[in-house]
Amino acid sequence: MLFSLTILGSGSALPTAERNHTAQVLQMDDRVILIDCGEGTQHQLRRFGIKFQKINHIYISHLHGDHYLGLAGLLSTFHLQGRTRSLTIFGPKGLEEITRLQFDYAETKPGYPIEFVTLTDDKYPIYEDKVISVEAHPVPHRIPCWAFYFKEKPKKRNINKEAVDSYNIPISAYDRIKNGGDFVLPDGTVLKNTELTYNPPPRRSYAFVTDTGFNPVLAEKIHGVNLLYHEATFLHDMTESATDKFHSTARQAAEFAELCEAGQLVIGHFSTRYKNADLLLQEAREVFPNTFAAEDGMEILIAV
Amino acid sequence: MLFSLTILGSGSALPTAERNHTAQVLQMDDRVILIDCGEGTQHQLRRFGIKFQKINHIYISHLHGDHYLGLAGLLSTFHLQGRTRSLTIFGPKGLEEITRLQFDYAETKPGYPIEFVTLTDDKYPIYEDKVISVEAHPVPHRIPCWAFYFKEKPKKRNINKEAVDSYNIPISAYDRIKNGGDFVLPDGTVLKNTELTYNPPPRRSYAFVTDTGFNPVLAEKIHGVNLLYHEATFLHDMTESATDKFHSTARQAAEFAELCEAGQLVIGHFSTRYKNADLLLQEAREVFPNTFAAEDGMEILIAV
Repeated sequence: MLFSLTILGSGSALPTAERNHTAQVLQMDDRVILIDCGEGTQHQLRRFGIKFQKINHIYISHLHGDHYLGLAGLLSTFHLQGRTRSLTIFGPKGLEEITRLQFDYAETKPGYPIEFVTLTDDKYPIYEDKVISVEAHPVPHRIPCWAFYFKEKPKKRNINKEAVDSYNIPISAYDRIKNGGDFVLPDGTVLKNTELTYNPPPRRSYAFVTDTGFNPVLAEKIHGVNLLYHEATFLHDMTESATDKFHSTARQAAEFAELCEAGQLVIGHFSTRYKNADLLLQEAREVFPNTFAAEDGMEILIAV
Repeated sequence: MLFSLTILGSGSALPTAERNHTAQVLQMDDRVILIDCGEGTQHQLRRFGIKFQKINHIYISHLHGDHYLGLAGLLSTFHLQGRTRSLTIFGPKGLEEITRLQFDYAETKPGYPIEFVTLTDDKYPIYEDKVISVEAHPVPHRIPCWAFYFKEKPKKRNINKEAVDSYNIPISAYDRIKNGGDFVLPDGTVLKNTELTYNPPPRRSYAFVTDTGFNPVLAEKIHGVNLLYHEATFLHDMTESATDKFHSTARQAAEFAELCEAGQLVIGHFSTRYKNADLLLQEAREVFPNTFAAEDGMEILIAV
């Protein structure tokens, strides 16, 4: 199953020609999940060819403009394009109030249902279905802010076609076997599940951590994450300033990745004081070699 | 004195790679006035090299997203770039409420004073200084909406250097002469002002008319305008739909330009149903030949 992340914006508060504000798309098969939605996100969705009418969940980390000001325009575009499919938006208190006020003054009633789910400080699992679970972890920032942790649900075991055929096991039994059950032959022989199946593909996971500082407590909560996006607004020589502003340095992002034993780290949310990400990437790789730097339009396959 | 219009966005509700939402910059010498501010306007300002910290007045026609959703991001950018210079925003009721709410949830107090002036239905002159006057005329749309009319103030006459020198007229008298006064020589001879001055450069004017239908009453109010921007969302074959939606066709835009005897017409706010503006331009030119089609980044010198 496809499980990939597309970076729509890798910059921070000030957009540049190369880096737009924060926004990402997480794709799982035909699901399209939007994470943050800075101004211009609908332009980036078009530019990078994302089928954005498929977005059914939007996660907003916090109410600084560079993380959500593109939402109202995107919702309006959904409406103008005739969307009827419902949409769920997970975000901080205030997001619904602002959005409804904008719709009210535009005298527009969207032609599709929008459900707002307000993030809280104490309820980490915020969504779950057959395929994924999502947790929202509050993180320290100048205003209320959350990190998001997306995990594939445990998958069923794969049938060993050769083995089941050799015992003439009926198809009706497959579901039970995929769920881990043994099978008893008419003569009473017990066939162990491991004889009839292969291990399922491993569960994959993605964590989105921005805007915040170095956070060991969060590292425990997302320990073992496969792909970690962590902000790296500054270089190490600006640690003090980063801490004051509740942001991270590239080194801190890498130390965090090491602490949670992430598979891969992608850093982003770079300050415009850096012309490119070279030094930020170099600094992070000294601590956590499997790091790369986000670029707008980059798609990353999430693997174990 | 420079008097020019730069198109930042020539599209309508749905942005495309070629046409962003409505936004324009009116420049008069070193004044920079922003008219409407759709999502992505700050990106366009950068892209087209406008010195946007110089913007001191913003005019917002109405609260449909494609005309104002870029405002919050622009105001935030002003703040992040250390602006201290005050800003005045003219717009519909609701604009201040939405903007203040966004600042409140971001827990950001802008580092520069913002004054909101709420547009009303009855007070046409909304701004005046030594150089320009501005009128806001309510126009029918699905929600409250205003057209803007920018006029240079009458200018002083130009001194005829040769003439004043030949009579040894002191420099201290120039101001009075520029204002139209005659000059009396010591021997009692009256020098007529026309002998001492040239006519001043003519007053120039610009009118911004979007989103609305064909409006003869408005044409009287802006009669003689030099440059007219008028929306032309649809072609003539969609007149009924245009009327229903309080929009105009290209032909109606041209008929309006003819009615107000505009110098030049620039049409914009094109529906995405048209791949380019060719047919819209052709339709308008059949009625009003001095028409051209807005393109993002186009700068137009306003002349008499």
